[in-house]
Amino acid sequence: MPELDFDVITLGHGSGGRLTNDLLEAGVFRLFQNKELQQRHDGATLDIKGRIAFSTDNYVISPVFFPGSNIGELAVNGTVNDLAMCGARARYISLGLILEEGLKMEELWEILAAIKISAENTGVSIVTGDTKVVEKGKGDSIFINTTGIGEVHPRSNINIDRIEPGDAIILSGPMATHGIAIMTMREGLKFESEIRSDTRPVHLMALKLIESLGDNIKMLRDPTRGGVATVLNEISRQRKLGVELDENSFPVNRQVAAACEVLGLDPLYVANEGIFIAIVKESVSGQVIDILKTFKDGKEAVQIGKITREHAGKVYVNSSIGGKRVAGMLAGEQLPRIC
Amino acid sequence: MPELDFDVITLGHGSGGRLTNDLLEAGVFRLFQNKELQQRHDGATLDIKGRIAFSTDNYVISPVFFPGSNIGELAVNGTVNDLAMCGARARYISLGLILEEGLKMEELWEILAAIKISAENTGVSIVTGDTKVVEKGKGDSIFINTTGIGEVHPRSNINIDRIEPGDAIILSGPMATHGIAIMTMREGLKFESEIRSDTRPVHLMALKLIESLGDNIKMLRDPTRGGVATVLNEISRQRKLGVELDENSFPVNRQVAAACEVLGLDPLYVANEGIFIAIVKESVSGQVIDILKTFKDGKEAVQIGKITREHAGKVYVNSSIGGKRVAGMLAGEQLPRIC
Repeated sequence: MPELDFDVITLGHGSGGRLTNDLLEAGVFRLFQNKELQQRHDGATLDIKGRIAFSTDNYVISPVFFPGSNIGELAVNGTVNDLAMCGARARYISLGLILEEGLKMEELWEILAAIKISAENTGVSIVTGDTKVVEKGKGDSIFINTTGIGEVHPRSNINIDRIEPGDAIILSGPMATHGIAIMTMREGLKFESEIRSDTRPVHLMALKLIESLGDNIKMLRDPTRGGVATVLNEISRQRKLGVELDENSFPVNRQVAAACEVLGLDPLYVANEGIFIAIVKESVSGQVIDILKTFKDGKEAVQIGKITREHAGKVYVNSSIGGKRVAGMLAGEQLPRIC
Repeated sequence: MPELDFDVITLGHGSGGRLTNDLLEAGVFRLFQNKELQQRHDGATLDIKGRIAFSTDNYVISPVFFPGSNIGELAVNGTVNDLAMCGARARYISLGLILEEGLKMEELWEILAAIKISAENTGVSIVTGDTKVVEKGKGDSIFINTTGIGEVHPRSNINIDRIEPGDAIILSGPMATHGIAIMTMREGLKFESEIRSDTRPVHLMALKLIESLGDNIKMLRDPTRGGVATVLNEISRQRKLGVELDENSFPVNRQVAAACEVLGLDPLYVANEGIFIAIVKESVSGQVIDILKTFKDGKEAVQIGKITREHAGKVYVNSSIGGKRVAGMLAGEQLPRIC
């Protein structure tokens, strides 16, 4: 952390004047230095080739520090992942901060440091940004917007309209981990070992699938808010096809499953940060799983179901105890401010 | 406004589940329909040619409805203008909403409608977005992030390093209007006629200058928070040159000037939304003003000063009553949450 003559954020830091300048010079610009930021302009100009992907996310997670990570890392990984779901490699990210008056500089610095490390790990540059400050009680510590630009892989042909009956639905890793990490923290539940958020970049796995299997990869989505069930409901409604899932196949870590039971939650609806759903041509399903398993974060990749012509617009689950149930969209708010 | 079965925003609208879906389908997607949004994906894929500009801004203005406009129009114009300052024509915008629980749908709808109209007026498409909801008392009605991608004009060569002693500093229109509109509203001050914010797109003026005069246009900046003085201080510090301004030349509307007097504010430090500073080669100064005057919003364009080799890093003002004074950066917070 740099030497600063202030240790909390004040409204003056959002003035656009001297204090904003001090904060940016001492913190942001020094931390994220690159030739685009160097220009100190209202925006960055960039050279980029071919088709691009563009994605935005606001992060309002509470608390901002949580088991395994903080809002800064989440904000970078989340946007890198959203771009990967578009078949793109993230290149540039903008950083919009809304700070609450009274935020400790020490906390802000820890979050910015996490952003820097995550950006380096994923190969993206923070090229432009904006900082605003709101009065105490008009925000909550820190909200972050990251918006990213990525280069679409030339072999990518991701398009919901390409999904057909018979396509396999693959999940890259165990579900419900992020949501349960946040919820057990909020509820003060204790397990043998701490349940940590699964926030992590998944772009290398996603891009490897596209690189290897091209347009056999028809759809990629990361099941964040609303979980796996909600994403699959959206897809089935929009594509007017059915989804059939096999509950026996669902990958859920033992402790996460136990926490779901205690909390009365269905892991299908719990938020994730470090996994994705791939909808792929049936014939490459095995190859997809094999490729994912070559990655540390893909060891538990598994086919969880398939696309069907029947029961269009609905997600059916073949229950582990026999029988079928409909898994609708998440109704109401299971867990506010999960990301 | 569409028929909805809810009239205020609840936490469930941020769940990512059914209520989020209802809000997006009934509101956002229907309002902003285009082929990118149609994909309902985590991001948009776009075709864009040549060099791009990329800019982000959070809008946290309070109140969200103010004389002359609302936060929605401000959020579109602001990002279109930031891109124009990079010599670019805005093409695509992302929309990140942070809604406070309890926000009236009627208000949200009015803001979204303003976004739609401003986007149409400026020729940009809203191609991707994100909506989050925070608990009552953890936000303030609505915060908006807009991040934009623009195509840089092929003749643009905007770069702070190209500024040289002798360059002319042109202001495209009267200063201090936005800040004074917000402040008189907050303070309940009354004038003969209402002072309205000057929020408006300035991209046509900026791009016309570049189109006509190419690299004679060395720098463009819109003096929002911190006003004209703060932007010129940033430039003079970074470029290590001086700035000399002529107070007699400053364009300020009569009522705005009167309000500044009443409130004890120096218009040089008050926020603007609908004007910009152009730093141009001295020899084209007259042409720049002539071109700006062909636009309705450029009728009061004027040269307010010049770049000097002397007093590097400082902004001097030749006062209207004789004598010279230094105009430093805005210190402290003159007016919180102005944009």
